[in-house]
Amino acid sequence: MGERYGSLVSVRPDVRVVDCTLRDGGLVNNFRFSDEFVRDLYLTNIKAGVDYMEFGYKASKEIFNPENFGKWKFCDEQDIRNIVGDNKTDMKIAVMADVGRTDFHKDILPKEESVIDMIRVATYINTIPAAIEMIEDAKEKGYEVTVNIMAISKVHEADLDAGLELLAQSNVDVIYLVDSFGAFYPEQIERLTKKYMDVAQKYNKIIGIHAHNNQQLAFANTIEALSRGASYLDATVSGMGRGAGNCYMELLLSFLKNPKYNKIAVMSFVEKQIDKLRAEGVIWGYDIAYLLTGILNSHPSAAIQFIKEHRNDYAMFYQELLDDAL
Amino acid sequence: MGERYGSLVSVRPDVRVVDCTLRDGGLVNNFRFSDEFVRDLYLTNIKAGVDYMEFGYKASKEIFNPENFGKWKFCDEQDIRNIVGDNKTDMKIAVMADVGRTDFHKDILPKEESVIDMIRVATYINTIPAAIEMIEDAKEKGYEVTVNIMAISKVHEADLDAGLELLAQSNVDVIYLVDSFGAFYPEQIERLTKKYMDVAQKYNKIIGIHAHNNQQLAFANTIEALSRGASYLDATVSGMGRGAGNCYMELLLSFLKNPKYNKIAVMSFVEKQIDKLRAEGVIWGYDIAYLLTGILNSHPSAAIQFIKEHRNDYAMFYQELLDDAL
Repeated sequence: MGERYGSLVSVRPDVRVVDCTLRDGGLVNNFRFSDEFVRDLYLTNIKAGVDYMEFGYKASKEIFNPENFGKWKFCDEQDIRNIVGDNKTDMKIAVMADVGRTDFHKDILPKEESVIDMIRVATYINTIPAAIEMIEDAKEKGYEVTVNIMAISKVHEADLDAGLELLAQSNVDVIYLVDSFGAFYPEQIERLTKKYMDVAQKYNKIIGIHAHNNQQLAFANTIEALSRGASYLDATVSGMGRGAGNCYMELLLSFLKNPKYNKIAVMSFVEKQIDKLRAEGVIWGYDIAYLLTGILNSHPSAAIQFIKEHRNDYAMFYQELLDDAL
Repeated sequence: MGERYGSLVSVRPDVRVVDCTLRDGGLVNNFRFSDEFVRDLYLTNIKAGVDYMEFGYKASKEIFNPENFGKWKFCDEQDIRNIVGDNKTDMKIAVMADVGRTDFHKDILPKEESVIDMIRVATYINTIPAAIEMIEDAKEKGYEVTVNIMAISKVHEADLDAGLELLAQSNVDVIYLVDSFGAFYPEQIERLTKKYMDVAQKYNKIIGIHAHNNQQLAFANTIEALSRGASYLDATVSGMGRGAGNCYMELLLSFLKNPKYNKIAVMSFVEKQIDKLRAEGVIWGYDIAYLLTGILNSHPSAAIQFIKEHRNDYAMFYQELLDDAL
C-alpha cells in the first residue's frame, strides 16, 4: 500500500476546510446571491467549524462591468464588512484573484485595512511569473497567500514540474492541486499529490486540493489528496460550483473526524437555502454532459450550454465535442 | 504506491461488466418495468458490450405474492425468453437468488433448459452454509455462480475471514465484495479487495465489486477495487438502484479502455428511457439522507422513507437515526 498521512479515525491537525460556495458557486448564478443567503452561509460556516470562507473574486471593474454581475465578483471591502463586521471569529476570510483580471495594486488593500485574511491567486501554467508578482504583492501587504495552477490536466509534466518549482521558490504559503475539468481519477490524484508534496517538503509549503465533480469523483479525489498529504481542502455546499460543481461540503465534513466540524449545520443550510436556489432554477451538478467534457479533458463551457438549452441528445453532443477536439 | 493491477490506459482482459439495472433498480419501482424498457435495455447492453445483464430476482412465489411485484422479482424462464429469445448473443444472462427467499430446487432449472447463464447467490454472513447449498445446487445444474456477502460493513473481521474461507472452498466462481450501505471509503475498499484477492488467489476464485452511492463513492470504490484486482464490476444505468443507487454504467464504461465497451449506447438509453422514468416520479440517487445512513453504516430504509415523505429536515432525521442506533 502507498504511504498515507493519518488514518480514517484520527484527526490531522494540519487540515483546513475552505468553503468556496460563493466563489465557485458564483460562477453558476453570476454571483447574484442575496445578502440573506450570504449572511446565513457565513453563520453556518462558523457553526460548522469551516476554517476559511471564500467570498468571491477580486475582479477588475475596468474589465468587468459591475452591472453584469453580483457584488461577489468584486468583493469590495465594504460589502464583505456588511456581512462579517470585523469578523471577530475563528473563521478566516478569503478571496480569489485571477492573474490578468485583478487590479491588485489598487484593489487589494494592505492587510491592516482589510477584513480579508487570505488571497487566493489563480493562474494558468503560462502566467506563473505574473502570478508570482501578485503573490509577492499580497505577501508584502500582509496576507496569507495560496496559488491555484488551473487546467493542469492539459499541461505537460515537464512544464508542471518547472511551474511548481518556480512557485515553490516564491513566498506563497499554499500550492493548490486543481482539477479544473474534473478529468482526473483518484489514481492520478495520488501521483500528482505525491509530486506536489515532494516540492512542498523541499520548500516548506503546504498543498491544497480543489476538485470538480464531472465524474462524481470530487469527494473521492479530495480525500485521496488528503490521505496523500494535502491539507487545504476546498468544498462547496451541495457541491455548488461551475458545471458539475465541486466536492460537497456535507460529504467532506462527514468524513473528517475533528469534532470541531459540524456537518449538521451545513445540512440545515441546505434545507433552508440550497433547495430554494434549485427551485429557482439555478442548475449545477453531475450530468452526462459534464462526464463527457471531463473524459475529453475539456472546459465545461460546451456542457453548460448544452444543459442551458435543455438538451439530452448525448450521442450528438459527444460527436460535437469530438469535432471541437480535432 | 500500493500494487495496482493494470494501468489507466490499458485493457484488463479479466474484466466483466455486469448490468444490475433491473435487479437493484427493481428495488426502487417494485420491478414494474415495461417490456419496452426491458427490451430496449437488453439491446442497449448488447450494443454497449456489457458482459452480463442481470434480469432480477428468482424470488419464491410462496413467500412473495406475485400480485405485489413486477415480473422481474421472479424472473420466470418464459418472461426472460419473451425478451431475449434464445439469447444468441455474446452477452450472458444473470439472475439473483437470495438465501432463504428462493425455492431454488424447483425454480432454478437445469442449465440446459434455461437461457440463464449465471446465478448470483446473495447471503448474509450468518447464512453462508445455506448459501453454499445453493451454490453447489446451481453449479451441479451447470451454471456459472457468484456469491454476494452482503452488509459486511457490519461484520467483524474474523467472521468475514472465516466466511470468505468457507465460500472459497465451495465451487463458487466469483466472490463479490459488497458495500450494501455505501459505508466504505476507497481506502477501506483497497484493504478489503486485498483481503478478498488473497483468498481468491489461494483458491483460484475471481473477485467482484458491488458498490452503493450514499457518499458519492460508488464509482470511485468500483475503480479502486478494479485497480486492486477485482474483475466483475457491477453497475446500473444512471446508478438506478436502492436508495442512493449504484455505480453509474455511464461512468464505468467511460473509464474502461476496452474498445468493445460503448458508453454512448448507454447514454442514448438514458436519453430515451431514464429521463422518462424520473419524470414519472421514480426516485433514486445521492441525497443527504443516504449520506447519513451511509456514515452511520445503516440500512437505507429510513432514508428511503424520509425521501418518500418529501422531508428535508436533515438535522432532525440525523437525531432519529442516532436514536435508532442506540
